[in-house]
Amino acid sequence: MKTPLTIALDAMGGDHGAKVVIAGAARALADQPGLQYRLYGDEGLVYKQLERFEELARASTVIPTSVTISMDAKPSQALRAGRRDSSMWKAIEAVKKGEAHAVVSAGNTGALMAMSKICLKMLPNIERPAIAGIWPTIKQPCIVLDLGGNVGASATKLVDFALMGAAMSRAIFHIDKPSVGLLNIGVEEVKGVEEVKTAHAVLADSDLPVDYRGFIEGNDIGKGEVDVVVTEGFSGNIALKTAEGTARQMGVYLREAMNSSLISKLGALLASGGFRALKHRMDTRRYNGGSFLGLKGIVIKSHGGTDEIGYASAINYACEFVRAGLVERIATDVEHFHNTLNGHSLSG
Amino acid sequence: MKTPLTIALDAMGGDHGAKVVIAGAARALADQPGLQYRLYGDEGLVYKQLERFEELARASTVIPTSVTISMDAKPSQALRAGRRDSSMWKAIEAVKKGEAHAVVSAGNTGALMAMSKICLKMLPNIERPAIAGIWPTIKQPCIVLDLGGNVGASATKLVDFALMGAAMSRAIFHIDKPSVGLLNIGVEEVKGVEEVKTAHAVLADSDLPVDYRGFIEGNDIGKGEVDVVVTEGFSGNIALKTAEGTARQMGVYLREAMNSSLISKLGALLASGGFRALKHRMDTRRYNGGSFLGLKGIVIKSHGGTDEIGYASAINYACEFVRAGLVERIATDVEHFHNTLNGHSLSG
Repeated sequence: MKTPLTIALDAMGGDHGAKVVIAGAARALADQPGLQYRLYGDEGLVYKQLERFEELARASTVIPTSVTISMDAKPSQALRAGRRDSSMWKAIEAVKKGEAHAVVSAGNTGALMAMSKICLKMLPNIERPAIAGIWPTIKQPCIVLDLGGNVGASATKLVDFALMGAAMSRAIFHIDKPSVGLLNIGVEEVKGVEEVKTAHAVLADSDLPVDYRGFIEGNDIGKGEVDVVVTEGFSGNIALKTAEGTARQMGVYLREAMNSSLISKLGALLASGGFRALKHRMDTRRYNGGSFLGLKGIVIKSHGGTDEIGYASAINYACEFVRAGLVERIATDVEHFHNTLNGHSLSG
Repeated sequence: MKTPLTIALDAMGGDHGAKVVIAGAARALADQPGLQYRLYGDEGLVYKQLERFEELARASTVIPTSVTISMDAKPSQALRAGRRDSSMWKAIEAVKKGEAHAVVSAGNTGALMAMSKICLKMLPNIERPAIAGIWPTIKQPCIVLDLGGNVGASATKLVDFALMGAAMSRAIFHIDKPSVGLLNIGVEEVKGVEEVKTAHAVLADSDLPVDYRGFIEGNDIGKGEVDVVVTEGFSGNIALKTAEGTARQMGVYLREAMNSSLISKLGALLASGGFRALKHRMDTRRYNGGSFLGLKGIVIKSHGGTDEIGYASAINYACEFVRAGLVERIATDVEHFHNTLNGHSLSG
C-alpha cells in the first residue's frame, strides 16, 4: 500500500452534494488519523464547505471538475455526458491512476457502476460488480450480496459472491473463515432454482475458504445465522428494501402505540433512555455503504440521502478494505475457485 | 352457492393437529353463524376435541381417515402414501365432490399444493397455484403473491397473478378496482428481468380490471402503496420471510431497549397499554392463511404453527372467498386476458 492512505471522494454525489460529503470526510478523518483525501467537484462549492474544517482542508487536495452526474441520469447518458470531465469519473480514475486507494460516491448508482466497470475493469472471471451491504442482525452484523448489481446469477456467480462476501467479512469483521448461507425458499419440494441448487452442491463439497452452512431463508438474515448471505441481485435487492420498509413500518406502529393514550406517552417519556438505545440500534447510518465487489479497485456507494454520519461510515469501510488488501484477496480466492473449474462454468 | 356454507378441514394438519384445528373451527363458527364443517381425521382424536365444543359438534360431520401426511414429507412421498386415505386428500376431495365449498389445512404446504392440483385441477391457462398472502401495512392490509408456488414466472403468469390478486382483494376487502404494483428493483438502468418488464408493458396498456400503478420496490409494500403486490415466487417468498424476520428483530431490539435500565422498565410498565396496542397491531394471526389461487376450488393453507386464533382467520377468509365467488371471478378475468393473447404467450 502506497502511503499515506488516500481516498478519492466524488464531492458532488448524493442528494445533498458537497455539504454532506465534506462534513462526512471531516468526521471520518477524526477516525482515521493520517488519512488523505482527493476531492473532485465544483471548486467554488468544495472550497466553501472546506472553510468549516481546517484540519480536513490540510488533508485534502481539491481537483476541480466541470460536470456533475445527476441522480436520475441513466448510466448510458451519464457515460456520454460525464466521461472524462465529471466528478464521479475523475474520482474513480484516481484509483485507476494510483493516486487514491479507494473511491467513495453518494451519486447515481447505475452510473457509478458503469463508470467503475469501464474505468477500473473487472477482475478476471468476474463479469459485473456485485453490490454487498452490511446488514444489522440481533447478533453481529452480516454481509448480504448481491443487492442489485446482477439480476439473476449463474451457479458460478453465486459461488463468486460467496468468496467475495467472505473476503469482505474478513476485511471488516476479522473473521478468519466466515460462515456463508445461500438464500433460498422452503416451500416447494423442488426447492429454489437450478442455479441455487448447483451452487449449493459446489459450496457443500469444496475446499473454498468459507464455512458453508447450506440454505437459509429470509427470516434467518435478521437472526444473524451466518456471516455472509448470498443471493442474486433481484431477490437480494427486494430483501433489502423489504427489510428497510418493515423496520420503518414497525417504527410507525411503535410511535402510534406510544401516542395512543396520555399514560402511554408518560411511560414512553420515562423510558426515553431505552428508546434512545433502540434508536441507536436501528440507526442504519453506521452500516451505510454498498461495496462494489469484483472490480480491480475499491468503490463504495454511499446512500444518496445519508448525512455526514452515514457518509463517514462509507469512508471508514473504504479504509478498512484498503488496509485488508480486499481486492487482492478477492482476486486470489476467485482465481483459485475458477482454476478448479478448469475453464468450464457450472451447469445450472 | 349450495347452502349451507360448508368448509372441509384437514383436522390432522399443522404442528398441533386436531387440538388447534377444532378450537379454531369453534372460534370461526362464532364469526360465521350457520357455518357447517366436514372434519377429516382420526376419529378418536377429533371426537375427543369436539367434546369441548357443543355447538361446533352440532355443526360438524366427522369423516374418519386413516393416514396423516407428515409435515416434512416430500410431496411425492405424500402422494404415494396419502392419496385417497389421508385427511388432507379427503378434505380436498370434499370440494371436488361438491360436499364442501372450500378446504383449509395447516398441513405440509408442498403436499397440499400437489394434492390440490391433482384433485381439483387448475383453471384453464393456469399451470400451478400461486400462493397469496395478506400483508399488514401502515395503511390497510394488502395482498402479496406469489409467495412461493411458482419459482420464476413468465410475463403471462405475472399478469395472471395481478388478476388473481385483484379478485382476492375484491373478495375480502371489497375494493372494486384494486391498485396493483409490480415488484421490481431500482438499481440498474435495465431495471429488472425481461418477464417483469414485459408484464409491466401489458398491465400499463390494457383494459384489465385492475388499477395498475407500475413498478414498486420492497420498501413500498409496508407503506401500503398498493392493494396488490405482484412478483414471482422466489422473490415473493424471500420478501415475506425477510419481513417476518425483520419484525421479530425489531421486537427483540425493543424488548432489550426497555430492559436496559430500571427507569426504562418502569416507563415500559406505565406504557403497557400502548405496548398492548402495538402487540395487537403486529399480531399476524389476524392475517393467517396462504390462499392457493388458480385452482378450480378454494384451498387455504394455514400456518402450521398457528394457534386457534390464526386458524379461525384462515377459515373466515375461506368463507369470504366462497361468498364472493372467488374461483368464478378469477376464471372469468383470466379467460378474458388469455383471449386477448389469442393463444400466444407473452414474450419475456
